[in-house]
Amino acid sequence: MLDRVVKIALLYDFYGALLTDKQQKCLELHYLSDYSLAEIATEFAVSRQAVHDILRRGEQILEDYERKLGLAERHRREQEIITQALAGLNDLPDSLRNHSQVTVTIKLLNQLIDQREESG
Amino acid sequence: MLDRVVKIALLYDFYGALLTDKQQKCLELHYLSDYSLAEIATEFAVSRQAVHDILRRGEQILEDYERKLGLAERHRREQEIITQALAGLNDLPDSLRNHSQVTVTIKLLNQLIDQREESG
Repeated sequence: MLDRVVKIALLYDFYGALLTDKQQKCLELHYLSDYSLAEIATEFAVSRQAVHDILRRGEQILEDYERKLGLAERHRREQEIITQALAGLNDLPDSLRNHSQVTVTIKLLNQLIDQREESG
Repeated sequence: MLDRVVKIALLYDFYGALLTDKQQKCLELHYLSDYSLAEIATEFAVSRQAVHDILRRGEQILEDYERKLGLAERHRREQEIITQALAGLNDLPDSLRNHSQVTVTIKLLNQLIDQREESG
């Protein structure tokens, strides 16, 4: 279940702007703010089933875009490589890791990871 | 003009799969294989004007997706940071740059840049 939440949140980060306002709002409340379906139903004065349908439709659209474009998967692979590159530098002996250019590179790569997560 | 070609080719890399088959084929021939409009018209047995219209429509769709999602621009900013990180490591004195973990990191980051360009 957590995997599913993480996956939808990532797809939402990539393709969310292609959903309708209502789909966006529902997915944000459910996946980013952890509202239950009943709470969202109250918020929008609709049935719990209606919220369920809006969520499923929104998720389906996000997954369709990912199936066609694969940009979230490409991102995941890139994140892995950056994390691996960072680990290599962080494992250097102190004398090397504290070299100013290495420090700057570590900072840049960390920024790359942070940037992407902040945008989520 | 070259900027425009590079821009459309990048957007095509990101969003091309969302175009129709005919739009994809026309954009590939024109932007990736450097066919003229007249050559594409002959290929498809349609008028030069029809090719022009298909290309404009395809470009417009790509630009609309980028306006909404901004993923090509996000990618461009990330490429800049990776390039900067690589430059820092490449500028290290030989004794440090040849340390195995630094070599591996340089290779990983290069792979990241290559990977993205290969996918284009």
